[in-house]
Amino acid sequence: MQIETSRGVTERRLDHYVVRWIMKQVGNPNISIRLWNGDEFPVTEARPVACMELRGRRAVVELLRAPGVGFGECYSKGLIEIHGDFPAFVNEITAALTRKKDRSYYGPKIRSILRAISANSHERSRHNVHHHYDLGNDFYKLWLDERMVYTCAYYDTPAATLAEAQVAKLEHVCRKLNLQPGQTVIEAGCGWGALSMHMAEHYGVNVIAYNLSGEQVRFATEQAAAKGLDDRVTFVHQDYRRIDERCDRFVSIGMLEHVGLANFSRLGALIKRSLKPEGFGLIHSIGRSHPDRTDAWITKHIFPGGHIPSLSEMMKVFEPHRFSVIDVENLRLHYARTCSAWLQNFEAESERVAQMYDDEFVRMWRLYLAGSMAGFQSGTLQLYQVLFAPHGNAHVPWTRHYQYRHQSQDH
Amino acid sequence: MQIETSRGVTERRLDHYVVRWIMKQVGNPNISIRLWNGDEFPVTEARPVACMELRGRRAVVELLRAPGVGFGECYSKGLIEIHGDFPAFVNEITAALTRKKDRSYYGPKIRSILRAISANSHERSRHNVHHHYDLGNDFYKLWLDERMVYTCAYYDTPAATLAEAQVAKLEHVCRKLNLQPGQTVIEAGCGWGALSMHMAEHYGVNVIAYNLSGEQVRFATEQAAAKGLDDRVTFVHQDYRRIDERCDRFVSIGMLEHVGLANFSRLGALIKRSLKPEGFGLIHSIGRSHPDRTDAWITKHIFPGGHIPSLSEMMKVFEPHRFSVIDVENLRLHYARTCSAWLQNFEAESERVAQMYDDEFVRMWRLYLAGSMAGFQSGTLQLYQVLFAPHGNAHVPWTRHYQYRHQSQDH
Repeated sequence: MQIETSRGVTERRLDHYVVRWIMKQVGNPNISIRLWNGDEFPVTEARPVACMELRGRRAVVELLRAPGVGFGECYSKGLIEIHGDFPAFVNEITAALTRKKDRSYYGPKIRSILRAISANSHERSRHNVHHHYDLGNDFYKLWLDERMVYTCAYYDTPAATLAEAQVAKLEHVCRKLNLQPGQTVIEAGCGWGALSMHMAEHYGVNVIAYNLSGEQVRFATEQAAAKGLDDRVTFVHQDYRRIDERCDRFVSIGMLEHVGLANFSRLGALIKRSLKPEGFGLIHSIGRSHPDRTDAWITKHIFPGGHIPSLSEMMKVFEPHRFSVIDVENLRLHYARTCSAWLQNFEAESERVAQMYDDEFVRMWRLYLAGSMAGFQSGTLQLYQVLFAPHGNAHVPWTRHYQYRHQSQDH
Repeated sequence: MQIETSRGVTERRLDHYVVRWIMKQVGNPNISIRLWNGDEFPVTEARPVACMELRGRRAVVELLRAPGVGFGECYSKGLIEIHGDFPAFVNEITAALTRKKDRSYYGPKIRSILRAISANSHERSRHNVHHHYDLGNDFYKLWLDERMVYTCAYYDTPAATLAEAQVAKLEHVCRKLNLQPGQTVIEAGCGWGALSMHMAEHYGVNVIAYNLSGEQVRFATEQAAAKGLDDRVTFVHQDYRRIDERCDRFVSIGMLEHVGLANFSRLGALIKRSLKPEGFGLIHSIGRSHPDRTDAWITKHIFPGGHIPSLSEMMKVFEPHRFSVIDVENLRLHYARTCSAWLQNFEAESERVAQMYDDEFVRMWRLYLAGSMAGFQSGTLQLYQVLFAPHGNAHVPWTRHYQYRHQSQDH
């Protein structure tokens, strides 16, 4: 039998009360709580999907001070531990927050942990990527597909692997663009160059691809030379705003999230200047179902200048320049599956990553990948592919049959 | 040799000057002008596509007073006559205005004739339709397809007739909705009931369809009874805002244009209340590539309360309620072709229409149909089909292949 002072009893009661209050703010997820003193209790009557251990009172203080940021930092540093299925835990927190947020749309009382756990921890990773760009390609090679595509895949068939789904995504984009041999394509924000090379190799187009990352441009240039595509693909180590060529097709995959709302109309002006009147283009971006501001802390520390737009916000790229939006497809569930595949690959290599960096790094990335997956699964995050044409272009495809004929799957 | 007083010469010069000034405001279309005194001159050096005859100085005064409204009224009353290809004339005016408007996006100097000639004369006709609802079904039977579908058709194949393209549209909508036997569908604004009956007959769903027009509801109810569908389709003579059933699918074709921007969020709230969490819906509406206000005169006299939205404006239906937009398709060129087919049918019956009503009525409808066609052809008007689902619905179709398998073309 344990003997406690009355002060001890009061403190314990207060700890339980505060933790339960925090769980209420999170929408009462079906998890159990374990405290630093060994106390354990479920948050709801339902069977808990996992157990969250708070390893010290400091974790409670951090959660109170800044729910989202606090959780991310505490988990990364090991002040919070999750016992059981980690992705299931993150999914459950995200779902609970979504349920809660849904009820309080017009006047949310607390800053949502959601942002840090899903959307903003996604953004957070972008920052980490940026922060750790000297991590270099070796890190990404551990868990991306062989083509190093770091955007949403397209699982054309249910049995597809990640690598197959990334090729299917490249194909899906090429089909939507209705590429014809000899055309000029500008790609803004080309990553490691997979799409540029795919377009040149399989569709016979000439590509000019812009990227701010010197390391990626170096990698892509080497790859293009090795494949004998360097006469048709040019990688330019420049900001997209320096584009001054004219093109038949404009494409940008996963760049808009970094552009910032204030620059959307400027991006549209640039596209209008570049794109021939009978051309068209595609922008692929993470989005939201409704506008949501990015947390001040996130904007400052994690994702400077970036913004994940709703569709109405995306229209700021197109409407001021009278582009005609001809096709929008939402692939959010494909991105949930992509993140899940990345997370699996990452976990399989986590010991190696811990050796390369440290355990905090591994926990941060785990949270980021699981949080992104939960965001797309729950609908906190969306993935829009928007096909658009200059005003009055009557040469746009007549129906969307051309996207589904799969005329060019010869690779 | 003609002898003129110096006053006559001055007047003539002034007439020419004023007419040329008006043509400049319209963007100098490639037409020729014939004046009441027999003077004839081309506006540009290019070969004119048609000749616009101004049959009195009053036409000039009306064009100066209110360009769009003035043209419509003068043409309807015969104060202006078009010699040559009427649709080509309207296309050329619309194209000239679009070119001009494009150059002066941020500070248009004149009220655009465009509105009255294309977008607003479309709206105008809606008013006329409304105004002349006692025209009854006989009038529309003269030039619509046999199913009386008064919205954009879908020309699935290039050789399709209007009737085939309307059936293809019904099919396209049904496929997008992924209808399953036994489901409940709410249709808001059902016209003469073609879609409701098609869904019930070919997809085995139960339909509750709302319509404000008593005459259309009577017609549709009779049709459903004749086809033995009255156990599965209920036509309700009520405003869509009175919907209080729950449904698996929500569909609305060509109603949003009449709802008015201020009611968009209210419509979204109603859909959210009606639609089951695992359901989804489709809204089909005329739209614009960018927001544009409706002329005050038009709002007052022609299209009260209505508004043709841009995509960002359409999002006011979805974003406040966190609907996830899963698919947008723009069918503007299909609507240009639909209007062209309607115009052809109408012209073939114009003598009969003139006997039923009068010549002014015929000219008004001709202008409306040709103007709408030109609006869709030039891109002044767009046609959006938006598929959407409640927030977090993970039961939406995985890809769009299901829309292109054509599993149900057994009719």
